[in-house]
Amino acid sequence: MSLQAELERPARQRLFNVAIVGATGAVGAELIGCLERRGFPVGQLKLLASARSAGKTLMFKGQPVAVEALTADSFDGVDIALFSAGASISRQYAPLAAAAGCVVVDNSSAFRVDPATPLVVPEVNGGLLATRPMIVANPNCVAAIAVMALAPLHARNRLVRVIGSTYQSASGAGAAAMEELELSTAARLAGEAFTPKVLPHPYAFNVFSHNTPIDPVTGYNGEETKVMAEIRKLLAAPDLRVAFTCIRVPVLRAHSMALTLEFEGHITAMEAQQWLADAPGVRIVNDNENNHFPMPSEATGADDVLVGRLRGDASDPSGRSLTLFLAGDQLLKGAALNAVQIAEQYAL
Amino acid sequence: MSLQAELERPARQRLFNVAIVGATGAVGAELIGCLERRGFPVGQLKLLASARSAGKTLMFKGQPVAVEALTADSFDGVDIALFSAGASISRQYAPLAAAAGCVVVDNSSAFRVDPATPLVVPEVNGGLLATRPMIVANPNCVAAIAVMALAPLHARNRLVRVIGSTYQSASGAGAAAMEELELSTAARLAGEAFTPKVLPHPYAFNVFSHNTPIDPVTGYNGEETKVMAEIRKLLAAPDLRVAFTCIRVPVLRAHSMALTLEFEGHITAMEAQQWLADAPGVRIVNDNENNHFPMPSEATGADDVLVGRLRGDASDPSGRSLTLFLAGDQLLKGAALNAVQIAEQYAL
Repeated sequence: MSLQAELERPARQRLFNVAIVGATGAVGAELIGCLERRGFPVGQLKLLASARSAGKTLMFKGQPVAVEALTADSFDGVDIALFSAGASISRQYAPLAAAAGCVVVDNSSAFRVDPATPLVVPEVNGGLLATRPMIVANPNCVAAIAVMALAPLHARNRLVRVIGSTYQSASGAGAAAMEELELSTAARLAGEAFTPKVLPHPYAFNVFSHNTPIDPVTGYNGEETKVMAEIRKLLAAPDLRVAFTCIRVPVLRAHSMALTLEFEGHITAMEAQQWLADAPGVRIVNDNENNHFPMPSEATGADDVLVGRLRGDASDPSGRSLTLFLAGDQLLKGAALNAVQIAEQYAL
Repeated sequence: MSLQAELERPARQRLFNVAIVGATGAVGAELIGCLERRGFPVGQLKLLASARSAGKTLMFKGQPVAVEALTADSFDGVDIALFSAGASISRQYAPLAAAAGCVVVDNSSAFRVDPATPLVVPEVNGGLLATRPMIVANPNCVAAIAVMALAPLHARNRLVRVIGSTYQSASGAGAAAMEELELSTAARLAGEAFTPKVLPHPYAFNVFSHNTPIDPVTGYNGEETKVMAEIRKLLAAPDLRVAFTCIRVPVLRAHSMALTLEFEGHITAMEAQQWLADAPGVRIVNDNENNHFPMPSEATGADDVLVGRLRGDASDPSGRSLTLFLAGDQLLKGAALNAVQIAEQYAL
């Protein structure tokens, strides 16, 4: 928090003790950055990670904070815990944290489709936080970014079908995958061999189907299945027909996607663009003249989801279908920013 | 041609004098390679390019061939000319070549949607060559690669709608774009600034909407408009509803795409996969167990189009819709290979 903001803060504003579980990961770093940049009223900050990372030091507001090993007692005296250490850690520790009176915002898939756990993007369904649930699920990155464009349209003209193709970055697979993209690309440019360790396929100048297991019945992979279910849950539209193809592209940290949307009623690209321009957290990037549209290079580090290429769907003469392209930072709106926005609903 | 093939060639097989227009470009290099590798019965080979490139030497069957400047007289004594030097060169010189008795296979967009000019992928509509037309158009790379998967399905169950999202490589913008991808990526890895010269946007670890002008009425860009019209023409399906989103990804030379296909009748992924497995020029790459599907890294240098991820479309409960992912070499089936396959229909 800046000095100015400190001075403007009500004298008796409550501070919250915050824990970050998975503090040394790619999302962990962004969680620390978002808390700092957005002036979250942090009292004590507790950085938790595996025993292997314990003892490392990370910076928060210019001060070093030692990383501690996660244990069952870690949440004593913690008000809000932001989990980003994988589903099995969340399944084990989130209930312990909640039992200790700590609100959990969980960035893993552990509770996302649990009917008892709200899955929240504050701009879309933040009202679910009014009951102060002890565990809140932060969506899959593709679902969180997609609904930023879907929800403002769905609110005015009910969506009936969504077809998406993703262009997903390395960051969704963590800091090690980002490093592997850089190292393998450097090796390729130098004409040297490189054996992938993090991802199952060569990543330098390559594209591949998301490396989650394929459901033998549906043919969809785990990522696609999550995205489809979470979009329905986030939009409270259980009957929405959704299909995604999730593809990894050699980009470091922002996800892009092409979406084709069918609505209940007639819709034009112009009215949809106006609705999106008015939506919080969305920025229209649609400069036909200069061929300038959403790109991961410009979404990287941006809180907003960039939306453009809005046009009537050439494959649907009914006038009820649009297509568009968007890009959003996987580590921000797709993960850390959304988690901190959820925490803000408890704190502010 | 291998020695074995030379020996097996009928003693009096006719040889053809072949010209390549645009011999020094990325497609030009592949045209030379395809003629050589496929044992095309070349008599004299004439390599044509701009005056700027004249005097360079390229190799064909182990022999140096000097590049000559393209002129109106270049086609005297030439039987077949393979053009790949842009639409304006084709508009100017293809009619001159044809008037001189030379068959033109044109890889530019100049004649593709001209109703009088056949647009040909030999596996799909090679029968159009039976009348020996003097000018034949070679399709846009995305259209050529896409119809390899569409046509075998359309032949058995009529397609009514195609929705595509592309993952297009640098090679579609030529050798200079491929070099810019490598140079800009090396600069990025070294932390150095790089100003794009060939493409309008940063290409290193980035994705962007295809840089062709946007049609102010439809909102589709030039590439998408070409692909949609050419797929309809290639499938002889003027009423087929097609929509594409064409996106450039940081890949060097093979294009990938995600396709959603609606058919007139019920269809299963299993039967579609069998039809595609039986289709010439298609290779099924669909190993769920090992998460191994079509990738540009494996399509590069391959004549076949790789098809996989075939599954029923989760967004269409009618049972008439499938989705799949494919990859094909932009410079081979998307350009040079298809052109040489067309020439073979005249020669063999």
